[in-house]
Amino acid sequence: MEETLLMIPGPTKVAPRVLKAMSDAIMNHRSAEFAEILVETNEMMAEIFQTENPAYTITGSGTAAMEAAVGNILNKGDKILNVVGGKFGERFLQIARATGGSPLELKVEWGTAVNPKDIENILDDNKDIKAVTIVHNETSTGVTNPIEEVGNILKNYDALYVVDTVSSLGGDDVAVDDYNIDICVTGSQKCLAAPPGMAAITVSDDAWNVIDKVDSNSYYLDIRKYKKYGNNKPAETPYTPSVSLMYAMREALSMIMEEGLESRIERHKLAAEATRNGVKAIGLELFAQEDVSSATVTAVKMPEGVSDKDMRGTMRDKYGIVLAGGQDHLKGNVFRIGHMGNITYKDIITTMSALEMTLKGLGFNIELGKGVAAAAGTYIASDHF
Amino acid sequence: MEETLLMIPGPTKVAPRVLKAMSDAIMNHRSAEFAEILVETNEMMAEIFQTENPAYTITGSGTAAMEAAVGNILNKGDKILNVVGGKFGERFLQIARATGGSPLELKVEWGTAVNPKDIENILDDNKDIKAVTIVHNETSTGVTNPIEEVGNILKNYDALYVVDTVSSLGGDDVAVDDYNIDICVTGSQKCLAAPPGMAAITVSDDAWNVIDKVDSNSYYLDIRKYKKYGNNKPAETPYTPSVSLMYAMREALSMIMEEGLESRIERHKLAAEATRNGVKAIGLELFAQEDVSSATVTAVKMPEGVSDKDMRGTMRDKYGIVLAGGQDHLKGNVFRIGHMGNITYKDIITTMSALEMTLKGLGFNIELGKGVAAAAGTYIASDHF
Repeated sequence: MEETLLMIPGPTKVAPRVLKAMSDAIMNHRSAEFAEILVETNEMMAEIFQTENPAYTITGSGTAAMEAAVGNILNKGDKILNVVGGKFGERFLQIARATGGSPLELKVEWGTAVNPKDIENILDDNKDIKAVTIVHNETSTGVTNPIEEVGNILKNYDALYVVDTVSSLGGDDVAVDDYNIDICVTGSQKCLAAPPGMAAITVSDDAWNVIDKVDSNSYYLDIRKYKKYGNNKPAETPYTPSVSLMYAMREALSMIMEEGLESRIERHKLAAEATRNGVKAIGLELFAQEDVSSATVTAVKMPEGVSDKDMRGTMRDKYGIVLAGGQDHLKGNVFRIGHMGNITYKDIITTMSALEMTLKGLGFNIELGKGVAAAAGTYIASDHF
Repeated sequence: MEETLLMIPGPTKVAPRVLKAMSDAIMNHRSAEFAEILVETNEMMAEIFQTENPAYTITGSGTAAMEAAVGNILNKGDKILNVVGGKFGERFLQIARATGGSPLELKVEWGTAVNPKDIENILDDNKDIKAVTIVHNETSTGVTNPIEEVGNILKNYDALYVVDTVSSLGGDDVAVDDYNIDICVTGSQKCLAAPPGMAAITVSDDAWNVIDKVDSNSYYLDIRKYKKYGNNKPAETPYTPSVSLMYAMREALSMIMEEGLESRIERHKLAAEATRNGVKAIGLELFAQEDVSSATVTAVKMPEGVSDKDMRGTMRDKYGIVLAGGQDHLKGNVFRIGHMGNITYKDIITTMSALEMTLKGLGFNIELGKGVAAAAGTYIASDHF
């Protein structure tokens, strides 16, 4: 039985050395020894967020950090603008509603990116908007939103800037301080290539000023406690953290430091380009507008006449490669190729080849090798390979 | 460097086979293969809770499950009775307040258990109490509350019965259905002996009837979603779960099944008895009233004339055994010996011996071997050894 290749947008393959670190003996989470690991992990997180502000790890899914980002800045009825162009944009809106906020929705067609000007117009018309949420990399559609441009607009407004980089941090450009981001969240299991179950958040001084005047909707996700306990000597988490996952996170983040954040991001961008070129050469159509397509996940329209079950089922069962399906109204209409974390050209090449064989096997008129050639050609033409 | 022995009330030592299971390759969390692991884990959880109702795992600390237990049953201003006789009883009260409830506090002296009659009286005087929370095993004081007796009272009232068994499930008697418990929560890292970072919850039909009429305070901890996704085919979690911890949980729970829940509980009770007898033979004083003392953690008064730093520091640095300190106003006044999870007589014996040597080294008039003899004597006198 060969190992399955996960080409999904998280969780991603975890390196053996990270798994090995994870299986170290459990230690007291309130000890100087553990504090060192915690501090080191949080400092590396801040470095990867590219911020001078501290970062905190939260034991939970990425969604827990999304809630911590929103639930700690909204009092009952506070207005928040949620940019919604996919499932995770929608999630921010649902969280805003669930935590007592009064959300304004800026709808963006799925597969396209937000126009920053639209955000500016809404802010001009609604001076009382307390925060704007945006998903950097919309995992459900394979679109990257222009968070730097939006940040340039938002610096002229009081509204806090909240960005979800769950599926982009470590795989695409995210410079929290340079982009004027107030609260940025991410998850362990995507581009960071650690096992799932841990999230991270960073918070600006402006955001703390707001947070200090808000009653958090949640006890567990009250971010003030993470700050308070983080400042203890030795540093602590408010509740028993996932000790093993902290070991894993530290190791995974160390691997990012060794590779170099910039090289890692270039590697992701190149994998994305190779994937898009391969897919197009096979004759498939991209779902997302190509000029705003994601560095970490590519959404592809399901070819006419084949079911998701047959396509992805064959890829998985016959070729040992797991792709992701579409979410919500895209279910059955798109499939998604994740190329995040520790993905190399080998994974892209085999995925293209398996895609060709799968489609040929399902009766499509496919010339084997064309997708592979396009992907390989992209690689060898690149300065970053 | 020898391995440190963790004698703290969680996280506890994790068996090599659990660590090994945890380091298996990451899989797609929305696959039939993972669903099997999820279902098996949740089913074993329900069996250990001794309930016919389904159990759900939550990616988070035990506190996350405590919040899920309370935040999902309270609308703004709903009255809830919180029994508070230690730090974790207090936590339930704080969570009730943070999630919009209007808590009534039943104060119980730290080190003693609640008198069920007091709960009955309060319920008679306050017909509008929607729920009662109680911590089964108060980790901060080493007291076990009489959850069966309280359950017998609560079946005559409409109030929901919410019990925290974070530090008792798998180490002391918890029969959710027999005790009429509506919502029961636990954590992975105590008696279950899995790594920290996962929590579990089970919910009765009566509780679901309430939950369905309540707006959860939290999006992440909205328990209805865990039910909904758990019922999907294949079963899922609402958000990316901690895949590696799920592997670990399944393995740890399998070990409980192999040992047998009853034997495991007897093993814990015996370890507790041996610890108490050992500690007393050394000449130390128990903090908790002995007839309500915990099966999983023993709180001991710090002997006069020695600092927590010297006592626990020596135990840790010279003897390689980590004990827990006191919490809140007990800081420096008690130390706590955790005897939960995969603890055997060997661990109790060495802890007693190290305790004797530590105190002797710190200038106390200690006769080496007396504590050990009392602990060993307890073991050989038992039918369960």
